[in-house]
Amino acid sequence: MIDNQAINLINDVIDVNDRGLTYGDGIFETIAYVNGELHNWHLHWQRLCSGAERLSLSIPDEVIFLNKINLKLLQNNDLDSDSLDSENLNSENLDSAKKVIKIIITRGKGGRGYQFPQQAQTSVIISVHHWPERSIDDYKKGIRVKVCQTCLAQQPVLAGIKHLNRLEQVLARNEFNGNDYHDGIMLACSDESSQLHSRVIEATSSNLFFVKNGQLFTPKIDTCGVQGTIRQEIFQRAKKMSISIEEGHYTLSELSDASDVFFSNSIFGIVPVASITCSDNTQWFYSQQNKQRISAALSSKINKALSRPVLL
Amino acid sequence: MIDNQAINLINDVIDVNDRGLTYGDGIFETIAYVNGELHNWHLHWQRLCSGAERLSLSIPDEVIFLNKINLKLLQNNDLDSDSLDSENLNSENLDSAKKVIKIIITRGKGGRGYQFPQQAQTSVIISVHHWPERSIDDYKKGIRVKVCQTCLAQQPVLAGIKHLNRLEQVLARNEFNGNDYHDGIMLACSDESSQLHSRVIEATSSNLFFVKNGQLFTPKIDTCGVQGTIRQEIFQRAKKMSISIEEGHYTLSELSDASDVFFSNSIFGIVPVASITCSDNTQWFYSQQNKQRISAALSSKINKALSRPVLL
Repeated sequence: MIDNQAINLINDVIDVNDRGLTYGDGIFETIAYVNGELHNWHLHWQRLCSGAERLSLSIPDEVIFLNKINLKLLQNNDLDSDSLDSENLNSENLDSAKKVIKIIITRGKGGRGYQFPQQAQTSVIISVHHWPERSIDDYKKGIRVKVCQTCLAQQPVLAGIKHLNRLEQVLARNEFNGNDYHDGIMLACSDESSQLHSRVIEATSSNLFFVKNGQLFTPKIDTCGVQGTIRQEIFQRAKKMSISIEEGHYTLSELSDASDVFFSNSIFGIVPVASITCSDNTQWFYSQQNKQRISAALSSKINKALSRPVLL
Repeated sequence: MIDNQAINLINDVIDVNDRGLTYGDGIFETIAYVNGELHNWHLHWQRLCSGAERLSLSIPDEVIFLNKINLKLLQNNDLDSDSLDSENLNSENLDSAKKVIKIIITRGKGGRGYQFPQQAQTSVIISVHHWPERSIDDYKKGIRVKVCQTCLAQQPVLAGIKHLNRLEQVLARNEFNGNDYHDGIMLACSDESSQLHSRVIEATSSNLFFVKNGQLFTPKIDTCGVQGTIRQEIFQRAKKMSISIEEGHYTLSELSDASDVFFSNSIFGIVPVASITCSDNTQWFYSQQNKQRISAALSSKINKALSRPVLL
């Protein structure tokens, strides 16, 4: 629902009765700002709208968002240039800056109790964060990945959207530190006792793709997981590049003989996987040497646009 | 983990980077303050501790909590008495006041990304809320209940604790307004197409009990749902009163021929159910006339302690 009236733009602090805090009653987006542009803004906006619709949240229209984001970027740029004169914002250097924009939208302040407040005033928080650098080795050699014990509960009503209920990702991400593994794969919760027979869904903050016999596969985001914007960009690009792509339900074991596995993320682009370690210590390794790789072809567009290394 | 050092006591507003807001990374409790006492404090404290352990959250020790709660109650009492002189707190009238105490504990401020912050400082929010009145008819005639379409995803890692990821309850509670139905029953998410064959778990903010042939039954909270404090009190009291009680996995259809169905909640006590309406309009009705009811016996202790009407 688009509603420009009932919006509360929040800066540094938020009321402790805001339902974003009390129930995780809201949605968010994390957007790359590179080369003077918000990468895949239309896909982020689409997901915000579908999340708002799913949760019956009122949000202001697109132009208001874009204006507020631009203002935040200008303010942040001036802070970076040590000029604190907010009356005199300038866009110098902003075109070459790389930033992460985060948007949080919540149902706003409410009393106790799960029922929507009668006159809800949506809270909107827009913040600008530094651009995280990443080792070139991650792109050249691929990353080491473990399969997390924390699974993704199957809840079709919340699948796909980027809502604020993220405890599963928090617990999964904290099963490893950055030294042993760079990221973790999450499976759908099920009665299966073996990880190998459970459905693979995504990484803790990325979507997952794999290649077999020249065909691209990615788990369907129908019962859990997030519909990533780079994931959607890959679908669009694969079509143009005549790469066959299939969405489905795949068990973890199907990754064992993939020729290529990679993750997609709105800030890091396409990141190749070098190895996967399951909880029973089964390990699979993936070569980064194949010059014909689909991941390399996709990265030549996607990673370039995000100022990330293109895979070779 | 008990840690008295790294605590940040929050009053009215919280940092927008607090992980309670960004990920729902925390837990909460809602406690009845009646007759000068925090009802079932030890059970609330136990659940806080087990939630903190499950999420690896540091929390201050019990004495610090109790001191802070008492201070908040005194401040609130003085506000109620129109005395704003916080230097001169007095406990007059406080013993007869009825209040709801809410505690929220979050992992505190963090950057972007799911990984725990290296030096996390737990945020603690203690707030005092007005005591919600409830129609005596709800206790005398029982309440009308619908079975919600929004189901509870099965996630054993989070089952039982009262964490801040509450979107399912928010969506379920907003499937009805207070006119047609007083509350909603939530089922476990499953592949079952019929509600009747799905597992019944709880109400949107209460636990559920039913009686058959003089025996008390309640759904097991092992894959989803919240381990309620009154639910635990009922287990303790049933034992003392030699009432047989069984915890298990029950389909919704098993409520069809129950002689008595009731909800338990830390603020409202035991509330009897008059009717249940399923999504296919199947309806079941429960008589409030049986003088031997187990719910009535339990309410004579529990509701009395909460200043709620005892069932007849």
